[in-house]
Amino acid sequence: IDAMAADAARRRQDHLTKPRGSLGRLEELAIRLAGLQGTPNPTSDPVQILLFAADHGVAAEGVSAFPQAVTVQMVRNIAAGGAAIAVLAQALDARLEILDVGMATDPGPIPGVRPERIGPGTANLARAPAMTDAQLAAAMNTGRAAAERALDGGARLLICGEMGIGNTTPATALTCALLDQPAEVIVGPGTGLSPEGVAHKADIITRALALHASEGSTPTELLARLGGFEIAAMVGALITAAQRGLPILVDGFIVSAAALVAARLQPELRHWLLFSHQSAEPGHQQIIAALEGDPLLDLGMRLGEGSGAAVAVPLLRLACALHQQMATFAEAGVSEADGALD
Amino acid sequence: IDAMAADAARRRQDHLTKPRGSLGRLEELAIRLAGLQGTPNPTSDPVQILLFAADHGVAAEGVSAFPQAVTVQMVRNIAAGGAAIAVLAQALDARLEILDVGMATDPGPIPGVRPERIGPGTANLARAPAMTDAQLAAAMNTGRAAAERALDGGARLLICGEMGIGNTTPATALTCALLDQPAEVIVGPGTGLSPEGVAHKADIITRALALHASEGSTPTELLARLGGFEIAAMVGALITAAQRGLPILVDGFIVSAAALVAARLQPELRHWLLFSHQSAEPGHQQIIAALEGDPLLDLGMRLGEGSGAAVAVPLLRLACALHQQMATFAEAGVSEADGALD
Repeated sequence: IDAMAADAARRRQDHLTKPRGSLGRLEELAIRLAGLQGTPNPTSDPVQILLFAADHGVAAEGVSAFPQAVTVQMVRNIAAGGAAIAVLAQALDARLEILDVGMATDPGPIPGVRPERIGPGTANLARAPAMTDAQLAAAMNTGRAAAERALDGGARLLICGEMGIGNTTPATALTCALLDQPAEVIVGPGTGLSPEGVAHKADIITRALALHASEGSTPTELLARLGGFEIAAMVGALITAAQRGLPILVDGFIVSAAALVAARLQPELRHWLLFSHQSAEPGHQQIIAALEGDPLLDLGMRLGEGSGAAVAVPLLRLACALHQQMATFAEAGVSEADGALD
Repeated sequence: IDAMAADAARRRQDHLTKPRGSLGRLEELAIRLAGLQGTPNPTSDPVQILLFAADHGVAAEGVSAFPQAVTVQMVRNIAAGGAAIAVLAQALDARLEILDVGMATDPGPIPGVRPERIGPGTANLARAPAMTDAQLAAAMNTGRAAAERALDGGARLLICGEMGIGNTTPATALTCALLDQPAEVIVGPGTGLSPEGVAHKADIITRALALHASEGSTPTELLARLGGFEIAAMVGALITAAQRGLPILVDGFIVSAAALVAARLQPELRHWLLFSHQSAEPGHQQIIAALEGDPLLDLGMRLGEGSGAAVAVPLLRLACALHQQMATFAEAGVSEADGALD
């Protein structure tokens, strides 16, 4: 992180034609992006969205309101432009790469979807480790390579998104294990479970934690046993982004769980995370607190796909536009605040 | 308000390819705009920003951190594209009309500024009524005419903004009088007063309230005695917008004070107000509570000019894009939630 660039950006903000600090978090955003990008004139564009899709063996336990077939159906819908993240990417003129990192059945070629299949979904984490060490390495490498492609393409901001029926269960299990919290504290309704469904999901997660998590478990072990292919791929993508200086706009609960794992593997990664929104999924707040985040938006969203992060993109764009294009007091011939009262 | 259009929009939201309600307030926004615009396919564009500038006799009491000359300097800066609202309007491709409704001295022609001068600033409300009844009527008519122009130009969303050194003082005085609160509860630092400056401002407002406000005072009387030309013009613009079915995206403290006056004159106007953001100015919360608003953003902004409302425009745009462009479950061939768990 470039403290000199951030300082230069802060000095510029203090001379723009407005009361100091009156743009609030938009000023902070510009200054923070300046430090992350190493330039006093930061930009959020181009924005690269990486959408990782995978299935989860634990779906067999009835932990989702939707049947597993919805994962591939929604991937087709995203590729065809009909899903929320596809509409948002188009409206925002953001790049969208869709990766099949292991849906339950191989759908064959889908235009606009990159096949990077680690396996036919994970194993059922309530009964066995979700993936092998080799699968974990392959999933993380797939995410790393996707982030490298984004960087090679000139991306200045990364959004990770996900699609995977049942994936609030591995995300919750990982969050419980890493934050040392019982399932009841973190678990939520996901796409729309009834209270009975939520209680059942908590039982499944409690069973998985008893099976796979112990005090000495490393983040890597927990990710293999309790994770998902798309979550592991996102961990890889986030690590590469932070290592190579690409700021990350973090979506909701699933992506934040991946960010939590990534930050345990690379603690300095935390500084590259800009939290876009507070999800309605209850466990999200705990992850944000653990990572000392401060979400920009609180709109009651709980859709996933990277949609919450996409909705926050205009705030970064406007923060950068104001930072770059506003006149200074000197340029505009505007008097500054009276010293006596300032 | 068209309940059938809102119901049609709600039904559409319930069939889009996402868990019901998972877009949170973006769903509510689309449904609400549908009801206000009387169409199941609402849109936020074109956006019209009306920027009203005026000066305030009460500035002589030392109630602002900035000298009065800054009003005209900032109007020139807005017209030249260097001020926050000008940068935002350009970045958002929103229309911006700038009106001089009574700065302290006539600046002569400024390209891009419409001269609609009611007078050379208001009288000092700490010592006399801010304006005459004739001036009040003229200011309100100027705002009404501006809203009519916006409507004639096809605007689908209205933002009012203001520039006027010292104008948190009339806005605070009006808020105190209409909400029956003492100055100390509502007053804030405006553009950056010291704690001593805030206490002095509270004293000035208390004096003005004793002079001009009594139990039987009507909103119109209070607006003339305690208001400002730009505040009165905004009251007129807001009333016309609501009467003619143009949704209003409300900015921060000053515009909200105008909205409070307007809602006292036309109670049903409240339904046309979409509150864009929670300002850092402390009195703003009380106005929002009185008008039962629920701001979309809370970014610590306190700049005025309509800047907070402008920053929220992309949320409305994305809400409308999602509403119009997302596929339904049937269109996309996606399975709906399991009945047993839904």
